[in-house]
Amino acid sequence: MTTRVLGIDPGLQCTGFGVVEQEGSKLHYVASGTIRTTSGIQLGNLPGRLKMIYEGICEVAQRYQPTAAACEIVFVNVNPQSTLLLGQARGAALTALVMSGLTVSEYTALQMKKSVVGHGHAKKDQIQEMVMRLLNLPGLPGKDAADALGIAITHAHAGGSFAAMAQATDLNRRTHAQFKGGRTY
Amino acid sequence: MTTRVLGIDPGLQCTGFGVVEQEGSKLHYVASGTIRTTSGIQLGNLPGRLKMIYEGICEVAQRYQPTAAACEIVFVNVNPQSTLLLGQARGAALTALVMSGLTVSEYTALQMKKSVVGHGHAKKDQIQEMVMRLLNLPGLPGKDAADALGIAITHAHAGGSFAAMAQATDLNRRTHAQFKGGRTY
Repeated sequence: MTTRVLGIDPGLQCTGFGVVEQEGSKLHYVASGTIRTTSGIQLGNLPGRLKMIYEGICEVAQRYQPTAAACEIVFVNVNPQSTLLLGQARGAALTALVMSGLTVSEYTALQMKKSVVGHGHAKKDQIQEMVMRLLNLPGLPGKDAADALGIAITHAHAGGSFAAMAQATDLNRRTHAQFKGGRTY
Repeated sequence: MTTRVLGIDPGLQCTGFGVVEQEGSKLHYVASGTIRTTSGIQLGNLPGRLKMIYEGICEVAQRYQPTAAACEIVFVNVNPQSTLLLGQARGAALTALVMSGLTVSEYTALQMKKSVVGHGHAKKDQIQEMVMRLLNLPGLPGKDAADALGIAITHAHAGGSFAAMAQATDLNRRTHAQFKGGRTY
């Protein structure tokens, strides 16, 4: 089965997106980029900037027709005002994904780093490096795009392991009738 | 000139809306209510709840055809996680307003209380009481709806005073050529 995952790394200034296709255990790069809200608009015009994020993601979803979406769980900032702004950007991004008819899974940066690099202390450039290798890219992706591709890869990996778990569960159910289901996702 | 203002008091559980029509110095009540995201959905399903806020506001805008929108500026909470959730709800609400083609003005609760009650220390029930009187309502509106109507009234009042200021400025400009403009809005 082929699934196509749209990963999003939300931010008010830069929202990274990355589309990855999974065919069995193979991952293929489809597209990636950054939606920037810093040019041609007043920085104080929050509604206008949210519109750019919303329309940008809808356009990406329309163009690349993903079958699932995954969005990074953002961290609260030491500055509450920044947390509020980031929250609003993420709200616009999530709304764009659900309004595009996509089911959205959410992963923390820690989960993404573990899934992509293998440990949770990975730095930005290690994520870029591993994303490049996993997807056979000719060069390093940008930082926001790499994070978004990493989130898409995390979802693809998780989907695979959950599918395996579901299969195992099915097997167990046949063998041991008392074993009840796996974790639903 | 008649303007019709859609006021929004955003929240993840309850988003209040209120539509007010301004004809010269007169204000008329058009509609108000609350978009609730607490029934028929898992509370942990954030994307689903943001969709309800987005679709609810789009539906209100479609039905009542406002000419302008005003949204309350939310406060950062002592709990950063709550701030983040509130931010995401407000992000979905603002996105719905701009995607409905509306220009959005933003007011703090303090500005709203001063405009509606006359001072910034007003309590919830005083806002409800004053909104009822200003709009000749037969009974008290709900708390979220009252806040949203209050925000719409604040925008109507501000529009009026800015229009007056613009007129005064125009007069001044004719009398004293050195006087340059007023505050743009």
